[in-house]
Amino acid sequence: MNHSQKSIGIDFGGTSIKPAVVQNGVIIARGETIYPSKYENSLTLIEALFDVITALRAAHPEIVGVGIGLPGFVDSKAGIVHTLSNVKGWNEVPMVRMLRDRTGLKAAIENDANAMAYAEYLHGAAKGAQNAVCITLGTGVGCGLVLDGKLFRGTRFAAGEVGHMSIDLNGPRGVFGTPGDLEVYVGNKQTAERASRLFNAAGRPRSVEQCTPKDLDELASQGDTIAIGLWEQLGTEIGAALVNVIWLLNPDVIVIGGGVAKAGALIFDPIRRTIRDRVSPLFYEQLKIVPAELGNDAGIIGCADLALEA
Amino acid sequence: MNHSQKSIGIDFGGTSIKPAVVQNGVIIARGETIYPSKYENSLTLIEALFDVITALRAAHPEIVGVGIGLPGFVDSKAGIVHTLSNVKGWNEVPMVRMLRDRTGLKAAIENDANAMAYAEYLHGAAKGAQNAVCITLGTGVGCGLVLDGKLFRGTRFAAGEVGHMSIDLNGPRGVFGTPGDLEVYVGNKQTAERASRLFNAAGRPRSVEQCTPKDLDELASQGDTIAIGLWEQLGTEIGAALVNVIWLLNPDVIVIGGGVAKAGALIFDPIRRTIRDRVSPLFYEQLKIVPAELGNDAGIIGCADLALEA
Repeated sequence: MNHSQKSIGIDFGGTSIKPAVVQNGVIIARGETIYPSKYENSLTLIEALFDVITALRAAHPEIVGVGIGLPGFVDSKAGIVHTLSNVKGWNEVPMVRMLRDRTGLKAAIENDANAMAYAEYLHGAAKGAQNAVCITLGTGVGCGLVLDGKLFRGTRFAAGEVGHMSIDLNGPRGVFGTPGDLEVYVGNKQTAERASRLFNAAGRPRSVEQCTPKDLDELASQGDTIAIGLWEQLGTEIGAALVNVIWLLNPDVIVIGGGVAKAGALIFDPIRRTIRDRVSPLFYEQLKIVPAELGNDAGIIGCADLALEA
Repeated sequence: MNHSQKSIGIDFGGTSIKPAVVQNGVIIARGETIYPSKYENSLTLIEALFDVITALRAAHPEIVGVGIGLPGFVDSKAGIVHTLSNVKGWNEVPMVRMLRDRTGLKAAIENDANAMAYAEYLHGAAKGAQNAVCITLGTGVGCGLVLDGKLFRGTRFAAGEVGHMSIDLNGPRGVFGTPGDLEVYVGNKQTAERASRLFNAAGRPRSVEQCTPKDLDELASQGDTIAIGLWEQLGTEIGAALVNVIWLLNPDVIVIGGGVAKAGALIFDPIRRTIRDRVSPLFYEQLKIVPAELGNDAGIIGCADLALEA
């Protein structure tokens, strides 16, 4: 494949859809953001999507491909969107065929966490790695795996559900009945609720809304012991799940992105410490645990790359 | 590669070394078993190994390769044995070069759990799978992974350490400091000790030696409630570790071998139940959880195959 060619990458989220033109792993132009809530149904929404593609191609006629990253159950081989996590009306959609027929471009679709992982592998924090585990800490825990230099998707394109891995046989059950489901501990909402409870119990009431990752980051930087302790606990819990990933896959790099990862050493220190204490040197010595480099653009870049490889 | 060619597979264990000639995934002749304890040092032992290879080639001149499966840290790409788990004097041995130079045959070495997994994938219980997880329950928990049709070894050739994955954040620590390390619960020795404790506490004393997997299997078949409960517990614990493997890799088959797996439904039922209750239908529906088919010969067959692919 030739990454110097231009292609369109589209990050299809539940609240906004962000298109851009990508070349050599860099965004060289952005299209207009689409807000799904503004559209009556999936048919009107998809017309808006094609309008943006048309506009980008008019400005960049050399574009050869289009890739879309979607949050959900996406068969990237058959090019079919089976279900989307927070968007209705997108079941069993033959998206790649639609894209190809309407645009004549090379086309690809991919689960968004996979697209992000692939971008970090080709251009970002996992560049040159052999085996990379890329997680994103947000509402939930997203994860994409690049194994032996290739995106690993699993049998039903569902691999990488680190967010549902169990860290405690006797822990509270997650949405799928897994006891000790990681997201029960470290999802953004759960973290905010836990923080609010701790502050309230300490006689320093804070609402859940006042406990965003950013708030907790600021509090910890000011020396707040509750916030510092909470980051420590979050890092230990995320680290515990990663310990299992490491024993199983023996990766050389773990990339951590998303809102929580912005807390830097506050979260990376306990993650690294937990891992170092719980795996053998053979697994730890060559392992890099690093922040994501491409930020919110990773999804756009990764699926633009996948379009070129289609 | 052409699996109809003949090659030698050697299962290099701490107590015995078993050579055989393999063709189309079937053992067609066996060489003499070598007992490492009979030899002064690694140099005399390796001569015995070459004697067996020479004898097998004399009887089967069409042999084109030789592969050795070893218990330990094996760089199958460079062909070097870094360390063996229960055998001294085999550090940093350029085994593939030695084999090639002395025999002129195609040569390969592989970690024994990987060799077994590869054999089950090519000829046994995981035949035709896309993503297979093959575990062996014995002294410890061995595991080999075949992902997207290829043996997955990890960055330092150490992937598949399911035996050290944690099932309990607050559990007892294993040899590498992992709390809730699976082998602390389900290793053969640990299981026998646990069983003995339970029988002693119930006023029906049994020594650790009287609590082998075979003993516990027989007792359970006779309706013994302690033995039945123990299998149930073992299956739940193994299942808990596999739940994490499934969330991460979304495999289509899990193959379970080793002494404990011989207990059949006693162990497979709670494993299957635990998994079904703790992962989403997307991960469970297409998943087969099946006993290994090639038994103790899997290691021999797998490395004979790998020799042909060398």
